[in-house]
Amino acid sequence: MKAFFDPGQTAHDPQTFLANGVLRPSPEQPRRAEVLHEAAVAAGCEFSVPEDHGIAFISDVHPSEYLAFLQNIHARWQRMDGASEEVVPNVHPNRHGVSYPDGMVGQAGWHMADTACPIGPHTWASAYLSAQSAVSGAQAVLSGEQAVYALCRPPGHHAFSDMAGGFCFLNNAAIAAKALLRAGCRPAILDVDVHHGNGTQGIFYDDPEVLTVSVHADPARFYPFFWGHAHERGRGPGEGTNLNLPLDRGTGDDGFLAALENGLERIELFGCDALVVALGLDAHENDPFQGLAVTTSGFASIAARIASLDLPTVIVQEGGYLQPELGPNLRSFLEGWQG
Amino acid sequence: MKAFFDPGQTAHDPQTFLANGVLRPSPEQPRRAEVLHEAAVAAGCEFSVPEDHGIAFISDVHPSEYLAFLQNIHARWQRMDGASEEVVPNVHPNRHGVSYPDGMVGQAGWHMADTACPIGPHTWASAYLSAQSAVSGAQAVLSGEQAVYALCRPPGHHAFSDMAGGFCFLNNAAIAAKALLRAGCRPAILDVDVHHGNGTQGIFYDDPEVLTVSVHADPARFYPFFWGHAHERGRGPGEGTNLNLPLDRGTGDDGFLAALENGLERIELFGCDALVVALGLDAHENDPFQGLAVTTSGFASIAARIASLDLPTVIVQEGGYLQPELGPNLRSFLEGWQG
Repeated sequence: MKAFFDPGQTAHDPQTFLANGVLRPSPEQPRRAEVLHEAAVAAGCEFSVPEDHGIAFISDVHPSEYLAFLQNIHARWQRMDGASEEVVPNVHPNRHGVSYPDGMVGQAGWHMADTACPIGPHTWASAYLSAQSAVSGAQAVLSGEQAVYALCRPPGHHAFSDMAGGFCFLNNAAIAAKALLRAGCRPAILDVDVHHGNGTQGIFYDDPEVLTVSVHADPARFYPFFWGHAHERGRGPGEGTNLNLPLDRGTGDDGFLAALENGLERIELFGCDALVVALGLDAHENDPFQGLAVTTSGFASIAARIASLDLPTVIVQEGGYLQPELGPNLRSFLEGWQG
Repeated sequence: MKAFFDPGQTAHDPQTFLANGVLRPSPEQPRRAEVLHEAAVAAGCEFSVPEDHGIAFISDVHPSEYLAFLQNIHARWQRMDGASEEVVPNVHPNRHGVSYPDGMVGQAGWHMADTACPIGPHTWASAYLSAQSAVSGAQAVLSGEQAVYALCRPPGHHAFSDMAGGFCFLNNAAIAAKALLRAGCRPAILDVDVHHGNGTQGIFYDDPEVLTVSVHADPARFYPFFWGHAHERGRGPGEGTNLNLPLDRGTGDDGFLAALENGLERIELFGCDALVVALGLDAHENDPFQGLAVTTSGFASIAARIASLDLPTVIVQEGGYLQPELGPNLRSFLEGWQG
């Protein structure tokens, strides 16, 4: 299987992670990319460094105001007396905001949903390269590859069009789907990360052209909380083109595969001719987030079942955090895909 | 002048204050209330402990879902493994939220705008009593007092109907205005705190019955960032019933008094027969927030000019932080009011 990764994607090295009111080390460490790279090579992936496809594909998803923010906020932040090394938001408009702010503290709260997406000196560069891996994956599929693995890190599925969150800055899966759409395909995005793909849902929530399906731990008491419930079905012209399949905490292989069947059925009914898989490996039973309990061999079954759709597919890396089975889980998925 | 304050309002003792990415001690200390109480007594105020007017006046402004959150979130938070002592939000829906979350971390991000309103064991009790001081002030005015001082602490003007923020939990000024409205008055709220009264604006943004006017430091690069700009004039039936008068950072007495004239003119045009003054003392030149540069004698001039409207008035305490002139500023205002 062809695969894409740029070593510059590891320069982003987030430190801050405020969870439940307590500062902890960020689980989204650069080392993840190395572990995933090794595992993909072991599964037979042939890696290339992605070409630079420029900003156009990214701009198909993210407005320029947000991209300018991501590019320049770290440098601006350093000019503030006594500011933190990383950009961390502390004040948010929530649903009451009426005016876009001029200043950096306001813009940070506007464009960042949480304290799990600190912006450091290399965040923009790594996120940009991560998105290029996704675009290269889509281009390879458009050139005839049946399945391609894009090792996207930092991940993307929690990023809305104009808002970072949950370790994510640019929505790589949405960027890949838009590249497929722009080339005339009718794509779906299938998200199997343990966390709901809220950014992806949000980007396409009003859009009838891209089907979004997500299997994930029930967000009632699990990140991202405000999105991912079964009743969220899309809006306006996009009504009915979003499917959420929340699972009880601790659900294992059988429950996951049963939900997956529902998702695949919807994808077939939608009449897709291309697929983006937002591949989190954090549904694993030993992942630090402890949302679901998929086994390592379960990932092979999940992959085999998705591959049986026989759709040209970009597999975009999302979450999955450092633990002994992170690499084996990716290897299991990729080997299961290849049968 | 009659005045209201309950010593229980000092039990709330916030510790956390994350600003510009750095944790600092909270400036909204219980000691503020003691300093303000002493100064008000020196200015001739006769204090009573407010009667308990119950939840009805508070419920006129805040929905029950939010009130339940404020009442029980601290106890729930303690049941979470490794949680912080105070409730501090870390993940927000911003303008993209679609579903109200069941869990406490999600609810904290839904109902709290920022990290400047941590909820401790006594927050609800103190906020409730602070609101009772405001209600008692309104009742005294309705009983014939020309002006009453409600020493509301914690303050209120950054609290929206369903969202805490900026040291505020219950919007005391809005609660007083609603009590006046309910009794048949046509009230205006005039906010002279250095920070825009965003919660107050939000509560009445669609409401033609209550005029909201705020004089404050320009929010372009100053809290609350997302609100307080001159172009925000109200919405729908409330269009034209909100007036923001942002001032350049560092504006002194003359500039403040000139803006105040515009505000008072609008209040007269609106045909008000009662007034709520949201009295921050943080527009002072030595306040730690350093937004404006009003002098101690400037507060007397501001008060005298507002008092000249000759409207029955509830003076509701908002911000103003510990510094040697905090007490003198309140005394100056109250003495200026009384001529």
